[in-house]
Amino acid sequence: MELLKERIRKDGKVRGTDVLKVDSFLNHQMDIELFEEIGKEFARRFEDEKITKILTIEASGIGIACIAARYFHVPVVFAKKNQTKNIAGDVYTSKVESFTHGRVYDIIVSKDYLGPDDKVLIIDDFLANGAALMGLSQLVKDAGATLVGCGIVIEKGFQPGGKMLRDKGVRVESLAIVDAMSEENGVTFRD
Amino acid sequence: MELLKERIRKDGKVRGTDVLKVDSFLNHQMDIELFEEIGKEFARRFEDEKITKILTIEASGIGIACIAARYFHVPVVFAKKNQTKNIAGDVYTSKVESFTHGRVYDIIVSKDYLGPDDKVLIIDDFLANGAALMGLSQLVKDAGATLVGCGIVIEKGFQPGGKMLRDKGVRVESLAIVDAMSEENGVTFRD
Repeated sequence: MELLKERIRKDGKVRGTDVLKVDSFLNHQMDIELFEEIGKEFARRFEDEKITKILTIEASGIGIACIAARYFHVPVVFAKKNQTKNIAGDVYTSKVESFTHGRVYDIIVSKDYLGPDDKVLIIDDFLANGAALMGLSQLVKDAGATLVGCGIVIEKGFQPGGKMLRDKGVRVESLAIVDAMSEENGVTFRD
Repeated sequence: MELLKERIRKDGKVRGTDVLKVDSFLNHQMDIELFEEIGKEFARRFEDEKITKILTIEASGIGIACIAARYFHVPVVFAKKNQTKNIAGDVYTSKVESFTHGRVYDIIVSKDYLGPDDKVLIIDDFLANGAALMGLSQLVKDAGATLVGCGIVIEKGFQPGGKMLRDKGVRVESLAIVDAMSEENGVTFRD
């Protein structure tokens, strides 16, 4: 998606060889007009699928998922990272190892909102090691629902998550795949 | 907002005298068509203000804020509850006591995304004790920005947050104010 790549080139900041800061438009401050273009592109790529639900994970996936959902006309469910007293009853749960925060946490979704009739599109802002997406896809499997695919804004193609998921047969659509980056040379995208 | 009140009556679940579960449409599964009506109503109520930025807090405020932002044509910034290595540099920070989770946590916003020229609308799903909104309004103040007001989906009118904020001169627009609730009689809204 050329508009997104241009924005990453213009406003993304590379730190070292593996941190890409896009908090000016994607995951802290959020450019909603860009999100609308991202949502339209996901809808175009998955238009032949009869998606019934978008699944994402708190926090930075939520905004993208909600704007994208406008083009799919389906509800969004976000997996929570902490048990709260406001989700009672039965939940699906899975473990995710966060490399950013250096810990393992549980993610949960209420059984009320994912079921065998659902055709699920997972949406998230980043794909790197694939830990969050693996956890989310496990929730979809546990619910007996169908995983249609994953819509990712930025994939770090030099980290293993994308290959791991595709090798498992998961359809992964990443709008920008970064194959290399450095503070000197910036970002190199996969064609 | 009558559509919202009807939805709360239909799908909200009262637990005890102070827990209102709306996770089927507001803060776990999210009904994006309802969010669009909520966004339009916030835009109507604040249409005379020259808002430059919407501020919310992770996680359940983000979806509502992003959909509402479509009608204001401004970016959304969400305050984060944890320091991550992906926000470098200077931040505004404030403390919030969570009654739901029974702990005090820091909220942070990068200084890059709030400044003296901003006219800020705070959006959140719930207002109860007002702790999150007080923390957010402190961030706005620390940034030298102008707080235009708060747009809230559901205010628990029997808890002190709304009165406390209004007594401080903050404009609070709540789309549904619950004055009482019980498992036997359901929800009583303020007129």
